[in-house]
Amino acid sequence: MAQDKENVVYLVKFNAMNNFLKKETDTRLRKLQQTITDAHADACIITSAVNQYWLRRFIFNGYMMVFPEGDPVLFVKRPSSIHDERVRMIRKPEQIPDMLREADLPQPARLLTESEVLPYNSLLRLQAALGMPEIINVSGELRKIRAVKSEYELNQIRESAAVHTKVYELIPSLYRKGMTDLELQIEIERQMRLHGSVGIFRSFGENMEIFMGSMLAGDNAQEASPYDFALGGKGISPLLPLGANGTPLVSGTTLMVDMAGNYRPWMDDMSRSFVIEQAPDIAYKAHQLSIDIIQAIEKTTKAGTPCADLYHLAEEMVQEKGLQPYFMGTAQQAKFIGHGVGLEINEPPVLTPRSKEILESGMAIAVEPKFVLPGIGAVGIENSYIVHESGLEKITLCEEALITLS
Amino acid sequence: MAQDKENVVYLVKFNAMNNFLKKETDTRLRKLQQTITDAHADACIITSAVNQYWLRRFIFNGYMMVFPEGDPVLFVKRPSSIHDERVRMIRKPEQIPDMLREADLPQPARLLTESEVLPYNSLLRLQAALGMPEIINVSGELRKIRAVKSEYELNQIRESAAVHTKVYELIPSLYRKGMTDLELQIEIERQMRLHGSVGIFRSFGENMEIFMGSMLAGDNAQEASPYDFALGGKGISPLLPLGANGTPLVSGTTLMVDMAGNYRPWMDDMSRSFVIEQAPDIAYKAHQLSIDIIQAIEKTTKAGTPCADLYHLAEEMVQEKGLQPYFMGTAQQAKFIGHGVGLEINEPPVLTPRSKEILESGMAIAVEPKFVLPGIGAVGIENSYIVHESGLEKITLCEEALITLS
Repeated sequence: MAQDKENVVYLVKFNAMNNFLKKETDTRLRKLQQTITDAHADACIITSAVNQYWLRRFIFNGYMMVFPEGDPVLFVKRPSSIHDERVRMIRKPEQIPDMLREADLPQPARLLTESEVLPYNSLLRLQAALGMPEIINVSGELRKIRAVKSEYELNQIRESAAVHTKVYELIPSLYRKGMTDLELQIEIERQMRLHGSVGIFRSFGENMEIFMGSMLAGDNAQEASPYDFALGGKGISPLLPLGANGTPLVSGTTLMVDMAGNYRPWMDDMSRSFVIEQAPDIAYKAHQLSIDIIQAIEKTTKAGTPCADLYHLAEEMVQEKGLQPYFMGTAQQAKFIGHGVGLEINEPPVLTPRSKEILESGMAIAVEPKFVLPGIGAVGIENSYIVHESGLEKITLCEEALITLS
Repeated sequence: MAQDKENVVYLVKFNAMNNFLKKETDTRLRKLQQTITDAHADACIITSAVNQYWLRRFIFNGYMMVFPEGDPVLFVKRPSSIHDERVRMIRKPEQIPDMLREADLPQPARLLTESEVLPYNSLLRLQAALGMPEIINVSGELRKIRAVKSEYELNQIRESAAVHTKVYELIPSLYRKGMTDLELQIEIERQMRLHGSVGIFRSFGENMEIFMGSMLAGDNAQEASPYDFALGGKGISPLLPLGANGTPLVSGTTLMVDMAGNYRPWMDDMSRSFVIEQAPDIAYKAHQLSIDIIQAIEKTTKAGTPCADLYHLAEEMVQEKGLQPYFMGTAQQAKFIGHGVGLEINEPPVLTPRSKEILESGMAIAVEPKFVLPGIGAVGIENSYIVHESGLEKITLCEEALITLS
């Protein structure tokens, strides 16, 4: 009897949650449908895992066709286990037109596609299969829509940040004298996984590869990398030239930890810096400047602030202290101090001097003014924030000072 | 003095290795140049990390332009640290034609590109930047060339397999009663990283995502996944529906471990199965059939064997024992028992009934006849082999029987 009652309560909660999430995805769908209408297009085909998940809460191998009105139709190759009246199982895209006809749905003549993600050959084949509709790129617009989050999505990022903070607080206890950067990273990775990290995290763009995050010790922080991440590092393989490279954690150097907060589908991003035993004064000075920049940005930023302003504010403060040669790298410096976060670790907006973007309420951003000091290592912090009308809400609530490992 | 002598010896060895690797990449380059000539093309542009590494032993953000003769020209956006007379630093592809003119190099009218990998928009932009050359897809041909390995590349796979074996031998000591599949996987991941795994590994194709490998316990092995991997699994996030999902490792069920052997740029692949305390007879019977199939394939396969033969041989043996309902899945069965391995985990050839490919000396393949038993879990093994004129060389030399965890 008690069990029955518990089951009923569970079922009521389950249904309430399902209804709530259905409303969430319906809202997202309507935004995409508005985009289709605005572009005078007949349909949009979604093929990326990120946008499939964003619209339907699961991913599949196939094509989601979204019309200006009504439910999307899912043309699915795999898995075989999706049960939904709007699903059509297919082997190849050439089957789609007949299926559209059978369902009394229109053949699109103007089609939005994820042209910045879908490979050239796959898109050409899809276009031919559909009778050569005109192709219009929707990748950027989808990223723009996703940049402004719902309260549910923002809560996911808050939750992820709370778990990430717990893991970062363990770092001093994971450190052992004589470790390399890589050995410490492996213990952090293990704690991340034990705390629910899914492991992989998604970044937008070609040739953007990374494994769980980046750790930079000593002069490895100066190594230029091929990727568009804030800093570089040599890595342990020429196939992944980024991050930790086996540098011993020796007294007098610093370590920057920048792992991805991927404990929920919507992610946070956070960096903290550590001193091995002790470090020259310049390390503390540059680290304090990073905190000062972060605090100045916290004071002046809110919905309506131009993204470029954040970069300019940081740049001015760096120039005042004469630390330009070390700001965001040495040999290869990134003209950049932050980015949006969400289902991908690098969502819009981008915080660069040339950015034309304006911060909006509901955006989630990571701000990361960092310094690379030759002979010492990287210092500085990265926090994630939610943008409100009234200002920034800091969600990575973790000790910000340089922490000594000994 | 002793130090000097040691340094000289080191330098001689270093130069010898460098010369050797230069010859390796020169041989690869000549194969691609032959492809360019055979296609009556003027050049090929390489953009993927895998093929950049295969041709030059490093990766970068930019375009490698290969001509039918001579050295490739590298148009590099990042990193800033490549020092080579054939490197031109660029910000955007529109700068390439002027640079070609300055270097007295031809503007290609027929261009080979990695059309199965490069996004549609990036390739359109590149094509426009280069004055609209005709585009021909070289992705498949490059994969075909890479499928036949040099002795150096095969040795990399052998070395990776040797390390992978050491990690797999640790699995019984990592197991603790009451663990979930995920908890055990996390300890295996840690050991893989401590043994030199780079973490990420590359698979070819859209929507092919995976984190370090797959573990399947109990009925999670029946879960259909959207990916083209041998088996499925629910995973711990709807954003990565594959592999371990937190299933408790309970007596009477089995566990299949299929982690990627990525300790070298060229990888091996291996699966082993475990019984939690004890399992029904059918588990041992199906597992033995997997070993029998593997051994029958080892006896009959060599350079010249059609790939489809391996599948048919396996299928016949499965039918003879009446285990078809469990072969390569239950609800969603893969018509497939193996694949090539190399810089990507899924290289040609593919071992399917419809494959037209013939095994060649120097290919490296993974053979994985597996069974999924409802109420029990997955059983079977996967070995990696090198194909010779005389037969198969097994390189994953690790206990093959069902191992009991208790």
